[in-house]
Amino acid sequence: MASRRPTLRLFAQCKTKPQFNHTWTPRRAASSFQSSGSARQAFSNSRNYLTLAAAGLAVATTLGYKMAVEDPIRCDSPTLAERDQQIKREKGVNDASPMRLRMEKFVKEQQKEIVRALEEADGTPFRVDEWQRKEGGGGITCVLQEGKVFEKAGVGVSVVYGTLPKPAIIKMRANHKNLAQEDDIPDSLEFFAAGLSLIVHPKNPMAPTVHLNYRYFETANPDGSSGAWWFGGGSDLTPSYLFDEDAIQFHKSLKEVCDAHDKEYYPRFKKWCDEYFYNKHRGECRGIGGIFFDDLDETVSDKENTFAFVQDALKSFAPTYISIINKRKDMPYTEEEKRWQQIRRGKYVEFNLVHDRGTAFGLNTPGARVESILMSLPLTARWEYMYEPAPKSREARLVEVLKNPKDWV
Amino acid sequence: MASRRPTLRLFAQCKTKPQFNHTWTPRRAASSFQSSGSARQAFSNSRNYLTLAAAGLAVATTLGYKMAVEDPIRCDSPTLAERDQQIKREKGVNDASPMRLRMEKFVKEQQKEIVRALEEADGTPFRVDEWQRKEGGGGITCVLQEGKVFEKAGVGVSVVYGTLPKPAIIKMRANHKNLAQEDDIPDSLEFFAAGLSLIVHPKNPMAPTVHLNYRYFETANPDGSSGAWWFGGGSDLTPSYLFDEDAIQFHKSLKEVCDAHDKEYYPRFKKWCDEYFYNKHRGECRGIGGIFFDDLDETVSDKENTFAFVQDALKSFAPTYISIINKRKDMPYTEEEKRWQQIRRGKYVEFNLVHDRGTAFGLNTPGARVESILMSLPLTARWEYMYEPAPKSREARLVEVLKNPKDWV
Repeated sequence: MASRRPTLRLFAQCKTKPQFNHTWTPRRAASSFQSSGSARQAFSNSRNYLTLAAAGLAVATTLGYKMAVEDPIRCDSPTLAERDQQIKREKGVNDASPMRLRMEKFVKEQQKEIVRALEEADGTPFRVDEWQRKEGGGGITCVLQEGKVFEKAGVGVSVVYGTLPKPAIIKMRANHKNLAQEDDIPDSLEFFAAGLSLIVHPKNPMAPTVHLNYRYFETANPDGSSGAWWFGGGSDLTPSYLFDEDAIQFHKSLKEVCDAHDKEYYPRFKKWCDEYFYNKHRGECRGIGGIFFDDLDETVSDKENTFAFVQDALKSFAPTYISIINKRKDMPYTEEEKRWQQIRRGKYVEFNLVHDRGTAFGLNTPGARVESILMSLPLTARWEYMYEPAPKSREARLVEVLKNPKDWV
Repeated sequence: MASRRPTLRLFAQCKTKPQFNHTWTPRRAASSFQSSGSARQAFSNSRNYLTLAAAGLAVATTLGYKMAVEDPIRCDSPTLAERDQQIKREKGVNDASPMRLRMEKFVKEQQKEIVRALEEADGTPFRVDEWQRKEGGGGITCVLQEGKVFEKAGVGVSVVYGTLPKPAIIKMRANHKNLAQEDDIPDSLEFFAAGLSLIVHPKNPMAPTVHLNYRYFETANPDGSSGAWWFGGGSDLTPSYLFDEDAIQFHKSLKEVCDAHDKEYYPRFKKWCDEYFYNKHRGECRGIGGIFFDDLDETVSDKENTFAFVQDALKSFAPTYISIINKRKDMPYTEEEKRWQQIRRGKYVEFNLVHDRGTAFGLNTPGARVESILMSLPLTARWEYMYEPAPKSREARLVEVLKNPKDWV
């Protein structure tokens, strides 16, 4: 997977040409890494550049490019990606493997499972694109377009190996003290990020759009062992027409998963979700929420328990959403209702392109796989000047709830 | 127009209640102005916060709010807005008036003229919304939606009176040294901005979208006389199907106007346009360009000559664009061609929401008139995953030209 990395393209500069499958392949000198001005600016523009896997991918792409162009080469120890390739080849992935490999395996399994469930609901197969990052890692993007039930559905996995420059380490230490000792911050740190992202836009305006993302991040110690780590994620529902029972079912399912792990999770992550998916310039939330969390590290719970929570949360998605879809996909609707759905889609586009940190950051970073980032956009959207729903209409009630998020359970 | 300003609402705090039409109405103490953290951050987030009139408006809105909430009041001299109101009442606006009032009058006349020309081409009247800024100034937003020829057309004028805090003055001095002496930067400066913005999205995919913006900015000296000033503007064409003769006609018209004032303008502003309207994450220009310029101040030409250039450029717009529209509006087209237009509209939305400095800045600023900023978005747009035009098709040729901007004249 990592065989086309710039590291390997720069072999010629090493004194000893290593064998391809050898443990000790060439790597860049961590201590001589200097982030470029543009990479540094990219970091400072993003409050949290690993909010979404797509953003993490984008960051690593920039860094990888700069390193390939600017960095001296030292042929001593294997990269994290190379170590992981070796572990996979020699031992496979099981419960004793590093969390990186377990998370990657898990999200890839879940991607297959969710794609299968959505295909079954729609009766249309997904298009599957597997792609690689020349800097390390890669992804699988699955998209269904103009199906019977779904206007557009995208389910993507991405895996990123990269290096954090010193300014990024300093920035990340604000939330993660164990990233490095304050008086001994290294010039660079290798990192790994893996995540699953999905967005489903159904055709029927009575059926809600849904978004989900779960991700894992860790840094590597110089000996290849795991350094700092954290999980992030959540899922949220965006109806054009509000059925209270759907909102209750969606939130109840999330609350059950949260409560099984920590009673404080649901209230905290529900609030975080309402705050994050807020279309500030419209003064309304993107949808009726769900859960959102980031930076779940050892200050909250241990790695095993947090992984167990993320697994349960992700596994609970398909049954709940498919159940809601099956209730709504064949409901009758008018042209006017379709038009309202298209206007709501416009607001969804506004959130994703203006406010979503991951999307905006990814798009502003050279080398990102743009079509994987923008699979989140609906097939069609509409902007009408000064459109206001009729007072006391169903459309007006939705807007009322978006302006004043409700507690659903 | 400025009668609902916070200044006037804060009368009660002044010792002597001034008469409404008196020359000496209350104003905020310039020397005691302190920009808030959020206003300061808003400035630092924007490379050039007066790139578009919409952005200028947004900036002033933030500042106005902060001033109304936080600033002490001193009842001594009139605001710039009050002085201008008085000039208009007592003397009217003529060639001897301050440039602020001449530019405002000119863009309002041009707005009427352009709206009339577009209404005639379409056969549908515009909706006209006049609005006021409580902090000073206001605007007129004219929108035509779902007409016979135009899917959506917006022509907006905005006029802004506001105050620049010290950090903004320091930032602006990078491009405009005469804003203040380096060793004597005031704590605040009153400013004025006025501009006309328009975007027209025709129905027929053979007819090109067009965008135009001309704007004027100046600061006031403490005695109310004009301080630093500059003009900005330009217009650019975005076809879904490329007719070379349209591109040539559009650019030729702009070149003629430019050449009549300065032979260096067209090559410089054409290049600037290609660079600014670049959809970086797509690696292509938004359209086939036109002209774009900013910061045209006394280092380039004098105020009268620059105003004359801006007038000629703006006046040349309607005849050229209407001539192109009349050639294209009734051309036959297929559903596939309409679909391609919708995909191109999606890229237009991406540029405006992700890269356009004025739009993004405006949307992130509390209190801006969002519907006036977003009148630029098309009525409908489409995003298809991994859509690629067929090799050697007309669609592929357009993309080729967008990736490699051409010299048209």
